Amino acid sequence: MIKVNENYEKLAGNYLFAEIAKRTKEYQAKNPDKKVIRLGIGDVTQPLAPSVVDGLAAGAKEMGSADTFMGYRSDEGYEFLREAIRKMDFLPRGVDIAIDEIFITTGAKEDTANFQELFSLDTKVAVPDPVYPVYVDANVMAGRTGKFVDGRYEGLVYLDCSKVNDFTPELPKEPVDLICLCFPNNPTGQVITKDQLKRWVDYARKNKAVILYDAAYEAYIRDPEIPRSIFEIDGAKEVAVEFRSLSKTAGFTGTRLGYTIVPKDAVAYDSDNKPVPLNKLWNRRQATKFNGVAYLIQKGAYEVFTEKGRAECNKIISYYMENAKIIGDGLKSIGIDFIGGTNSPYIWLKTPGGLSSWDFFDKLINEIQVVGTPGAGFGKCGEGYFRLTSFGKREDVISAVERIKTLKI
Amino acid sequence: MIKVNENYEKLAGNYLFAEIAKRTKEYQAKNPDKKVIRLGIGDVTQPLAPSVVDGLAAGAKEMGSADTFMGYRSDEGYEFLREAIRKMDFLPRGVDIAIDEIFITTGAKEDTANFQELFSLDTKVAVPDPVYPVYVDANVMAGRTGKFVDGRYEGLVYLDCSKVNDFTPELPKEPVDLICLCFPNNPTGQVITKDQLKRWVDYARKNKAVILYDAAYEAYIRDPEIPRSIFEIDGAKEVAVEFRSLSKTAGFTGTRLGYTIVPKDAVAYDSDNKPVPLNKLWNRRQATKFNGVAYLIQKGAYEVFTEKGRAECNKIISYYMENAKIIGDGLKSIGIDFIGGTNSPYIWLKTPGGLSSWDFFDKLINEIQVVGTPGAGFGKCGEGYFRLTSFGKREDVISAVERIKTLKI
Repeated sequence: MIKVNENYEKLAGNYLFAEIAKRTKEYQAKNPDKKVIRLGIGDVTQPLAPSVVDGLAAGAKEMGSADTFMGYRSDEGYEFLREAIRKMDFLPRGVDIAIDEIFITTGAKEDTANFQELFSLDTKVAVPDPVYPVYVDANVMAGRTGKFVDGRYEGLVYLDCSKVNDFTPELPKEPVDLICLCFPNNPTGQVITKDQLKRWVDYARKNKAVILYDAAYEAYIRDPEIPRSIFEIDGAKEVAVEFRSLSKTAGFTGTRLGYTIVPKDAVAYDSDNKPVPLNKLWNRRQATKFNGVAYLIQKGAYEVFTEKGRAECNKIISYYMENAKIIGDGLKSIGIDFIGGTNSPYIWLKTPGGLSSWDFFDKLINEIQVVGTPGAGFGKCGEGYFRLTSFGKREDVISAVERIKTLKI
Repeated sequence: MIKVNENYEKLAGNYLFAEIAKRTKEYQAKNPDKKVIRLGIGDVTQPLAPSVVDGLAAGAKEMGSADTFMGYRSDEGYEFLREAIRKMDFLPRGVDIAIDEIFITTGAKEDTANFQELFSLDTKVAVPDPVYPVYVDANVMAGRTGKFVDGRYEGLVYLDCSKVNDFTPELPKEPVDLICLCFPNNPTGQVITKDQLKRWVDYARKNKAVILYDAAYEAYIRDPEIPRSIFEIDGAKEVAVEFRSLSKTAGFTGTRLGYTIVPKDAVAYDSDNKPVPLNKLWNRRQATKFNGVAYLIQKGAYEVFTEKGRAECNKIISYYMENAKIIGDGLKSIGIDFIGGTNSPYIWLKTPGGLSSWDFFDKLINEIQVVGTPGAGFGKCGEGYFRLTSFGKREDVISAVERIKTLKI
């Protein structure tokens, strides 16, 4: 008799964004005449940059001719793209990443979920709270977390992020092996300074731990002093892996391309305490379970790493950052407390009137038809908070802010 | 101290196709003037069908306009594509699959590798030998196989496929929980009749086992009596999951789209022996670890399920099948024994002169610069066999056959 992986039963509720989509759909079905504005799931609304569209179309055309057709190639991604990433994302920040340390994939969600496979099942995992649910759920499914009791998994170490520590996690008091960090943070929008990040790198080196660093929102950093990559920190290449994505950098939420940096110096240890390079393990994982990203998608993505394409993308990012300012100004005007919205597309607000996150969600959709993300969905420390995103269309953002100002709170 | 997943150390050698690519590259580097013909990795060479190229280009264009831009949508795939698959692939064969039983993904390799995650770690897995290495390696990495001893993993049940049983696996003598089947078979090219397949379905129902049925090559079946889907067999929906791919159906090896059918009736069991629907579990897995296939790829894929697009694809399949005939005729003319090549793009030949598979590989590349796949790379029963694919360009296939005829054997 075949048995299921019973770790799935430990998952607490639906995947957060699936749950929001479900509730929104139900509301809309009951109220078909109401216009719902979605500032929830963090999906972008602006079209792809013209250079990217041209790249995709050129790729499609190449696939139609025998001379330029592309079949299986490198599971790790085309060199033209990896070289462009190296030159545009890292070298200008003083970080020298080799091409074979860059793995092209279908997205940071997939990679942050899959990377835990390389580690032993008794790995002690630390996650921030609030946290992007994928880091947690992937470890639950693998069996590393134990049971869900009182809103937390018994086997995880939670790094509380609250007003007390300015939503910046502190080093854990107990030893941990694997540390998930995300900056600019999803969901809080908080960023990290070089000094703060160095403390994490030093901790990982001292404790022979690994940091999984999610930098999916680095393109939103405007302050030149804020690190865009963990590899700007000395010694990070020995202990960190970095996840990046074009989803928010270039509107690829529906086009799907991410890239993961696995330095050759980064290691975990075998049972004889001998170091094993993560680059080699990840390569083996990808070669076995993945077959690369579509050629034409990589061809389109390449344009993001040209001067022209990047300028087009930055214009779109500025548009979203202006949205963030409009939301922030609106919240300020009615006295709602928040962080984020600068160096980040996310705004993390304290729910007014002491409402729970989900009560505020229900209030917003029912009273003013605005959808956001309940902070409690990101963890215990998220209770009483709410995430808004700046990825809407300008007119929707303006309407949403006008509606929020009418809230009786 | 962070520990690696030591199951990776149990993996026997490189991923097969990575090893072939490596050896081929090394040969070519040493012999830059020689023209190597690749009939090895099973990659297609003909361009995408014109309708598909148009679909991709139209999708790219839509992504460039705010009105038609597509961001995150369904992790499971767009309904327009799933409905088209339902209508073209299944209904005409008398199989009624619901849209929410179809999951669009980036390929059958990924899905056959990932699906094992839904099952408990003590699942007893049966695989054919020879076998597509992904089924085995994914289970090795998860820790279900034990050690590799004398060419086999101690914890797997191998279903020997040899000349004795006409390369068709027989029911296992010991009870198993999970059965990997692939028809038309990779690597042997063998197909299965409805009666033979029914025996597997009956076995799975009786033993509460699950069949993972890889139908990636079903488009090559020309005999109307041969089942294209396991769901043509009564009762299969309770015990089977089917993997399909456009890689060989429509030349998507470098464009990446597969689809997996998980019927709502298919179940595994929890520790109280209560049935748990696999459809629900897979949905949760995909929602957490995957973010869907690029919209424009789905838009291009849709064309494969229109009358016009399918006719174009079938023309390409006929071209490859003619290649298979040319290879088969060539082998016959020099007395080399083989199966496959009808209802399948693969030709599985007995190495002449009793050579080992890898010796024959070396002989072929060194003497006549033809690359194929050593049968031993697919398992113990593959030793002394060799796989050729029909996916080459016609002129290369003709040259390869001429060269093979000159072999001193």
